[in-house]
Amino acid sequence: MQAFLITFCISAMDLECASQETVKQGLLARGWPPIKGFSKHVKTKVLEFFSLLIKLGQDDPRRVVHSLKAGLALTLVSLFYYYQPLYKSFGVSAMWAVITVVVVFEFSVGATLGKGVNRGLATLLAGGLAVAAHQLANLSGRIGEPIVLGIFVFLQAAVSTFVRFCPQIKARYDYGLLIFILTFSLISISGFRDDEVLELVHKRLLTVLIGGSTCVIISVLVFPVWAGQDLHNLIASNMEKLGIFLEGFGDEYFKMPEDGESKEDRPFLQGYKSVLDSKTNEDALANFARWEPRHGRFQFRHPWKQYLKIGALTRKCAYRIESLNGHLYADIQAKREIRSKIQETCTTMSMESGKALKELSMAIKTMVKPFAADIHIENSKSSVKNLDTLLKSGLWDDETDLLEVVPVATVASLLIDVVTCTAEIAESVNELATMLKFEVVEPTVSPEKPETGQPKIGIS
Amino acid sequence: MQAFLITFCISAMDLECASQETVKQGLLARGWPPIKGFSKHVKTKVLEFFSLLIKLGQDDPRRVVHSLKAGLALTLVSLFYYYQPLYKSFGVSAMWAVITVVVVFEFSVGATLGKGVNRGLATLLAGGLAVAAHQLANLSGRIGEPIVLGIFVFLQAAVSTFVRFCPQIKARYDYGLLIFILTFSLISISGFRDDEVLELVHKRLLTVLIGGSTCVIISVLVFPVWAGQDLHNLIASNMEKLGIFLEGFGDEYFKMPEDGESKEDRPFLQGYKSVLDSKTNEDALANFARWEPRHGRFQFRHPWKQYLKIGALTRKCAYRIESLNGHLYADIQAKREIRSKIQETCTTMSMESGKALKELSMAIKTMVKPFAADIHIENSKSSVKNLDTLLKSGLWDDETDLLEVVPVATVASLLIDVVTCTAEIAESVNELATMLKFEVVEPTVSPEKPETGQPKIGIS
Repeated sequence: MQAFLITFCISAMDLECASQETVKQGLLARGWPPIKGFSKHVKTKVLEFFSLLIKLGQDDPRRVVHSLKAGLALTLVSLFYYYQPLYKSFGVSAMWAVITVVVVFEFSVGATLGKGVNRGLATLLAGGLAVAAHQLANLSGRIGEPIVLGIFVFLQAAVSTFVRFCPQIKARYDYGLLIFILTFSLISISGFRDDEVLELVHKRLLTVLIGGSTCVIISVLVFPVWAGQDLHNLIASNMEKLGIFLEGFGDEYFKMPEDGESKEDRPFLQGYKSVLDSKTNEDALANFARWEPRHGRFQFRHPWKQYLKIGALTRKCAYRIESLNGHLYADIQAKREIRSKIQETCTTMSMESGKALKELSMAIKTMVKPFAADIHIENSKSSVKNLDTLLKSGLWDDETDLLEVVPVATVASLLIDVVTCTAEIAESVNELATMLKFEVVEPTVSPEKPETGQPKIGIS
Repeated sequence: MQAFLITFCISAMDLECASQETVKQGLLARGWPPIKGFSKHVKTKVLEFFSLLIKLGQDDPRRVVHSLKAGLALTLVSLFYYYQPLYKSFGVSAMWAVITVVVVFEFSVGATLGKGVNRGLATLLAGGLAVAAHQLANLSGRIGEPIVLGIFVFLQAAVSTFVRFCPQIKARYDYGLLIFILTFSLISISGFRDDEVLELVHKRLLTVLIGGSTCVIISVLVFPVWAGQDLHNLIASNMEKLGIFLEGFGDEYFKMPEDGESKEDRPFLQGYKSVLDSKTNEDALANFARWEPRHGRFQFRHPWKQYLKIGALTRKCAYRIESLNGHLYADIQAKREIRSKIQETCTTMSMESGKALKELSMAIKTMVKPFAADIHIENSKSSVKNLDTLLKSGLWDDETDLLEVVPVATVASLLIDVVTCTAEIAESVNELATMLKFEVVEPTVSPEKPETGQPKIGIS
């Protein structure tokens, strides 16, 4: 494919050079405008593609490393063909080692290990059963044999395919079931033509093991990418994104737009959007992480479920923020005096929740017990209380149009929801901190104290 | 795997029988309580697993049919081994047909076709390039050959693996790139030991084509499952789920809970939750649907992008509903008189939006131009206008505590957002109706007319 792409690029560049020459000559240029246009189009597309690839590499240099690792693993197992003593013992079966490397080698250690273990166990199990099926079919004579084998192949394929629909099994053993079907069919069918079935199974199992272990060893030893670490970082960075939005929201919402300035030019306020759809990614990473052995600060039975719980709460908070974001751009017309009355408390609520989320995110990242988060949450809860007092005190005069109050009240109410969500997130991060015995570090600078004397206030 | 499971179940049942006997005997029962407990545990687990499988089949009987189809396809290609004339021409290469069937046969026609085309084209391209690489390597002598081949294998594996990270390519050609790496490596490496490389490529291509076309033919002819139809139904049913929530919300929110009754026992109000995480599923179905040929009311270049647009708007509406749902259970304590003042308009807004969504869902399902949806949307917009009037008229007296108004105002404001979302969804469904020339059918019963004389009102 890449050779094709390179050929494609070269021919595109050739076309471009040719068209430049024709421009110089001035003769053909007028005669062949379509070639010029086409060449320009192709050049643009190729350049776009290359800049996309460069960006992919810059965004995550581990991708480049992974590609080199994949090339290395494949080149290593191809030694089976080149090196005579190795080829002697395996022959064409060495092919299975190559196939195993191509399909098992994945980006993260967990994914590679999961696929490797699935492939190895499924090959062992299916090989054993296929030998048994072959022996049974042998009893039914030369004519009965293909019929009995056919029935076995049909039944196992149908049942295994159906079991693959089961969500719990699909999540962890889908690839194993696929390999089970594949190996059982291949070995039981091959047995019909080749009586040395046991040797076939033995060779296949050995080559799969060699291919699989090559993948796992390279994956673990050469710049390993741990799915667990990725999940850990994803959960922390999702929280941070919400924090960034909330820290910016108050100022942004209450600020009056200046001449010609559009509120929508705020990319830092749009980072939270990726959190809305993060469930699939989190689930996949958690599934891979479960296969991973102890590494760095992560144990084998790390509480990945707790990470998913925190992720779900973060998403819940992101849904509220999505509603808030709708108001950021919709209520520009609301009156200044209405907004300014609750500006301070709302900004504090938003700012303090944002700070708490960023603090919690940092606590997860560094695996240090969150220290200031509770204080920020208490501050935001105090603001909720202040808002209550403000509303009770009959802040609005009789002439205030209730219609103008509704959007501002909604923002306030959504912020109260966000404070509740943040408190829930903090609670589950604290649970995680207890489970993993996060370090306790005394901060050098003490954060601001709660604004009221009664910080522990139930919020509606 | 299933054989293993069956063995597992049988042994579990044996254990159970044995334990029952021991209970009868009364002697061992007291001596071996762990066996009894273990047997009971295993039996429960096995029964749970079987009832889960039965439920999976009942939920979507196409799963059972698909499993039988997979068994049929595999049994058909295994004829290559059993039937002497076929085996003579392909020999062990027939294995590739079996492998192709196992990995290419997918649930929907689109997924099967996509994988089949990817596998076929990638095999062709990689085979051609591998032959060229083999010829080039041949020129460098017996010692240079493995080095040149090794460099080729390394380079193509590294570049192709890196290109697989590109999201646009991953979505449609990921499997093709995997097969490209596999075929190129296998053929160029095999060429080192077997000089009849061209024949190898030819046999491999032919068997892959036979396996692939077996899958596609069975997938299309025997009870086909179309990804396009599934996406179509998913989009419609997601909209319906939101409609069901909104139709029920008004009554549920404003109803006072009776003695001992809990508002949370309302499973019909929780159906919308699955819409929040539907993006991955919709994207996958749209990717598969793009491979599908014309079928039923769907053309080859059906506007799948428009479906994704409607899906995204539906999710946006679901985020608002998630916020609304939070208030359903939180504001029980709010005063009756406050709520009752805006009860009618809010219930109408919610009810009419719900009706509009259900109508739009039905329009997509039946591919008939939505007739009454616009009227329902106008009705809901009129209610927004009525609410505005109600709020402007100074409905609340001076003694009303503003604090008690906030949650109700939030619900009203979120409902206004929902009305806006519904209008956006209606607009994009109408675009789809124009694109696909939906049938126009005059309804037999005319729905209620808008409540005010000026139905077209801008909503905040």
